[in-house]
Amino acid sequence: MRFKVSYSITGTQKEARKKAFDICVEQTIEFPYELVKDKYVKNNIVGRIESLTRKGPSLFEAVISYDTSTAGKEFTQLLNVVFGNTSIKPGIRVEKVTLPTAMLAGFGGPRFGVSGIKKLTGVYNRPLLCSAIKPMGTSAEGLADMAYKFALGGIDLIKDDHGLANQAFSPFSRRVDLVSAAVRKANRQTGGKCLYAPNITADSEAEIIRRAKSAKKASAGGLVISPGLAGFNSMRLIAADKSIRLPLLMHPALLGSFTASKDSGFSHYFLYGQLARLCGADISIFPNFGGRFSFSKQECKSISEGCRVKMGGLKNILPGPGGGITVDRVAELKKFYGNDVIFLIGGGLVAAGPDISDNVRSIKKALL
Amino acid sequence: MRFKVSYSITGTQKEARKKAFDICVEQTIEFPYELVKDKYVKNNIVGRIESLTRKGPSLFEAVISYDTSTAGKEFTQLLNVVFGNTSIKPGIRVEKVTLPTAMLAGFGGPRFGVSGIKKLTGVYNRPLLCSAIKPMGTSAEGLADMAYKFALGGIDLIKDDHGLANQAFSPFSRRVDLVSAAVRKANRQTGGKCLYAPNITADSEAEIIRRAKSAKKASAGGLVISPGLAGFNSMRLIAADKSIRLPLLMHPALLGSFTASKDSGFSHYFLYGQLARLCGADISIFPNFGGRFSFSKQECKSISEGCRVKMGGLKNILPGPGGGITVDRVAELKKFYGNDVIFLIGGGLVAAGPDISDNVRSIKKALL
Repeated sequence: MRFKVSYSITGTQKEARKKAFDICVEQTIEFPYELVKDKYVKNNIVGRIESLTRKGPSLFEAVISYDTSTAGKEFTQLLNVVFGNTSIKPGIRVEKVTLPTAMLAGFGGPRFGVSGIKKLTGVYNRPLLCSAIKPMGTSAEGLADMAYKFALGGIDLIKDDHGLANQAFSPFSRRVDLVSAAVRKANRQTGGKCLYAPNITADSEAEIIRRAKSAKKASAGGLVISPGLAGFNSMRLIAADKSIRLPLLMHPALLGSFTASKDSGFSHYFLYGQLARLCGADISIFPNFGGRFSFSKQECKSISEGCRVKMGGLKNILPGPGGGITVDRVAELKKFYGNDVIFLIGGGLVAAGPDISDNVRSIKKALL
Repeated sequence: MRFKVSYSITGTQKEARKKAFDICVEQTIEFPYELVKDKYVKNNIVGRIESLTRKGPSLFEAVISYDTSTAGKEFTQLLNVVFGNTSIKPGIRVEKVTLPTAMLAGFGGPRFGVSGIKKLTGVYNRPLLCSAIKPMGTSAEGLADMAYKFALGGIDLIKDDHGLANQAFSPFSRRVDLVSAAVRKANRQTGGKCLYAPNITADSEAEIIRRAKSAKKASAGGLVISPGLAGFNSMRLIAADKSIRLPLLMHPALLGSFTASKDSGFSHYFLYGQLARLCGADISIFPNFGGRFSFSKQECKSISEGCRVKMGGLKNILPGPGGGITVDRVAELKKFYGNDVIFLIGGGLVAAGPDISDNVRSIKKALL
């Protein structure tokens, strides 16, 4: 059984063919091909060029297949075969992966996905709305007050800003207790189902799991994690843990370098779509086009596609565009993303008017 | 108490100043600055531009300081403050960090460092020599045989190829047992102190720790880990674990994207020097200049500097250039790196002649 990786490769056809063969060797045996004596290693372990297609004047797509045994059923090793050493070579980019259904099943994927999030929030007919409690430096009481106002306005999901960890000004436990209680109180008043997702990114997987469980106990409704900071595995572990069972929001902190170069790293489609799902994210947060970051419209579109492309039995997930979204862009963005999306509006929701709850209400109207 | 980060910023002076201020906000409060009412947040939590210096026609260096409380004593959160969201913005690169001694002490750093590795190997008067057992797909017996020949030739350190995980063709436990035994046998014959470092990169920190402990039990002499695959924390945890106490070799798999763009991501100095040390690496493996990768001579030089620059009480570590090093380059490279270096020669050591042990002997002579 083999899995496939599509790489973009820059250069002339001759250079691209050479680079493609180098990938086959570098990603597996990392050893002079001509010195390999074992036929099994030569024929099965070394990657295989399945196709090489011209995509532009000096751009090619190489599809390379690898024996699934090279990944040894480990996610870290799968990533290693996909791009480990080749990440250090110029002009090669991972565009997408095609994994056999059996292999995908081994990685589990998102526990909730689009359908699960819709069921939890009760929202079926419009994009979802999320905001973040911040700024960093605010006390747990201050953040709880902000969350209360968001929830009172009927927001669907409230997340910790990804910069809220376990700092002295708002320790994790105290924050989670107070914010959860504030959101519960607002939900009782509105009859709503607003979910609160604390940030569990931490220094070790043991601590991440501990925080996830304590958040669950405090009746949190989701969890935020930054795999760029804590490792891709850590998100996968939380998604797979049956005692946790909370929707996961993947935050892109420190992931920017993977898409910083047009002809290197990961495609947006792979990183924020396919890889997010492989790691068990239910919501993939990324910087929206036209905001204060630099993703293009086309890149954001490709993320949406990666969030819902058929990947064996893995659930589709919600793209979560954010970063500088303002109230007046909601209609345009709804048209662009459709209803299977969750908009993250942070500063824009606070800046829109003096009453945060009113601001939420008017955006929710615009979403319908 | 504040820590400092030096960023390269592209653009005109006006643009650079604006970008620098954006970093101060994005990396901390991630909130419209003008809406912040709390004076403590405005004056202490928001980053502060300490200096902005022209470095080229459209290149500036901004030194920005942050209150240490923003990192909340967590390594993941420190990384987040240094570059989390800003990693997604174009034309900004982390060049170096300057952390207060007290903060550095909290992260522990390398357990062995240059002096510890010298003591373990007994090598004081020349660069160290390391090779990798491979290719992937070889049985544990085949790998043990290769290790035996390396050790018999008097090599200082043998590492698992970073693509050897726990695959069916060479399961971790069996490989570690057989290779360790083969190296012990050779050491008895030569009276040498050759160390064997298995690759413990795995799908969860619990499993990484389990493999590290079982490697220790099998009398391994070091450990290989790829933080790009397993997360930066995982290496730090192993370095800090008092029941493990083995030298750590940091492998660069999947880290290439951080240095793929000249004006984005991490500098080589920071990633393979400072960050490697913060995470507890004793040896920082990176692709040598002039090999099959693309690092320049200057970039490799800067890595050496990052491995030994004064960082509070953190130990200096050994740069480990590798990737396509051949026997005939050893003299030139010794002149370039000095004696505080470990050369990784893989394929080149096998290709140099029919007898692997003899090949090791002649390279060792060239190193003196």
